[in-house]
Amino acid sequence: MRLATVSHANGTSAAVLHGGTWRALPAVDLSALLAATRPDQAAGLTGDVLSDAVPVLPLPAPGKAICCGLNYADHIRETRRELPTYPTLFPKYADTLTGPDADIVLPRGLQVDWEAELAVVVGATLRRADRATALAGIAGYTVANDISVRDWQYRTLEWFQGKAWDASTPVGPVIVTPDEIDPATGLDVICRVNGEQVQRDSTKTLVFDAADLLAYISAFTVLRPGDLVLTGTPGGVGVAREPKRFLADGDVVETEISGIGTLRNTVRFTD
Amino acid sequence: MRLATVSHANGTSAAVLHGGTWRALPAVDLSALLAATRPDQAAGLTGDVLSDAVPVLPLPAPGKAICCGLNYADHIRETRRELPTYPTLFPKYADTLTGPDADIVLPRGLQVDWEAELAVVVGATLRRADRATALAGIAGYTVANDISVRDWQYRTLEWFQGKAWDASTPVGPVIVTPDEIDPATGLDVICRVNGEQVQRDSTKTLVFDAADLLAYISAFTVLRPGDLVLTGTPGGVGVAREPKRFLADGDVVETEISGIGTLRNTVRFTD
Repeated sequence: MRLATVSHANGTSAAVLHGGTWRALPAVDLSALLAATRPDQAAGLTGDVLSDAVPVLPLPAPGKAICCGLNYADHIRETRRELPTYPTLFPKYADTLTGPDADIVLPRGLQVDWEAELAVVVGATLRRADRATALAGIAGYTVANDISVRDWQYRTLEWFQGKAWDASTPVGPVIVTPDEIDPATGLDVICRVNGEQVQRDSTKTLVFDAADLLAYISAFTVLRPGDLVLTGTPGGVGVAREPKRFLADGDVVETEISGIGTLRNTVRFTD
Repeated sequence: MRLATVSHANGTSAAVLHGGTWRALPAVDLSALLAATRPDQAAGLTGDVLSDAVPVLPLPAPGKAICCGLNYADHIRETRRELPTYPTLFPKYADTLTGPDADIVLPRGLQVDWEAELAVVVGATLRRADRATALAGIAGYTVANDISVRDWQYRTLEWFQGKAWDASTPVGPVIVTPDEIDPATGLDVICRVNGEQVQRDSTKTLVFDAADLLAYISAFTVLRPGDLVLTGTPGGVGVAREPKRFLADGDVVETEISGIGTLRNTVRFTD
């Protein structure tokens, strides 16, 4: 099943794709749908065809959006660190997220970098969940780019202030349910800047997989339906290059995961 | 003005103290009140006397609760770091917070430590605010203890997973408006464990004050009425002692700020 929040002539709606056509689900967006409905029951609620539907930010109101850093072996090597015993975690806000085709508007002069990532959508309430419970509590998978403001990220020990700029992290375009894809079999995670491939790896090389991360996080804080967990980025980020490379005004960042879809976002700097 | 969320016979209510008596304000709690009302207008909305009122967690639903680390000169020295150019920031969740008299219930075996802190309550929507705008956007001040799970905090580079354990950070008991207190003049911040004073410093030694922090944060993410900013802890935490000292089952942690009030929380370990 492919789920989305779509905009259409009369507003937004949660929606499900049937044979190339978006059909309405009974909620204004997937955050509202998942708060009220088990994801595997969504197919039974399908309503009208939405002929003018365009996918927007699928989850506009996650209570938690937690990211894992340093989770692909080659990215860990490029940051000159050792393979981790525990996942490195940091958070974003609902305010941090933006749509799959939205411009990323930031003040001029920041060191803005890309981080293509598989994102996991929580589908159940998880408290101190074991791996099997966490796996069963996954609603689906989507694409994210953990756009990072490197100069602020490295101002202090804590990355948060470089990772939580409003409307900087595109997510979408759709959420694919686990009956259709399994990251353990290897989904290609790709980032392109102005058409040039800058990152490419497979989700089968993740150190901590989706179920690992949900179980680990749920040991200290409850996860709820509609929460997001970003699984980390492969090698190839701009800050690790020689010379370092950051995004420029007008750069187009495409973030693709095989079997899910592609984000296409243009960076816009303002004064 | 002293504001609180109080529990009473019929539920909870936002409330204001008048001559030793709590009187109802028109909202179920201060999160709801601040979302709808400018804090300086609250006094005009006073309703019935609540004779059985007991202050509980004043802000149960902040969208953001952002903490500053390393903000008192002597605490920075005990962690063997230099005075910072930028504030070190990390977040908590609404789920992380608990009431001024609540037990702090955590799994047995964690290294649990105290961090008494002045907390600032946001009273306006702040986006890229300058210092004067940030100062005018402060609704008031309250007491918090940034209870920290040190072993998880130091598992990775990012402190978040040691700082965001559900229901571990007591806040309250009241919010005092800026017309009554000014941290720049020096409020004593005190922590006691089983009656023994373990931290004591003055808010006048903060490296980054309340307005500095709100302005700095608002450069990257919007702050809204009812959001919380914790300003950091003085020297004297358990992990910096020789030998290290952590909280034990049954320990009573009192967190006091002069002119505001005292939190009194008992640590309870569970299997």
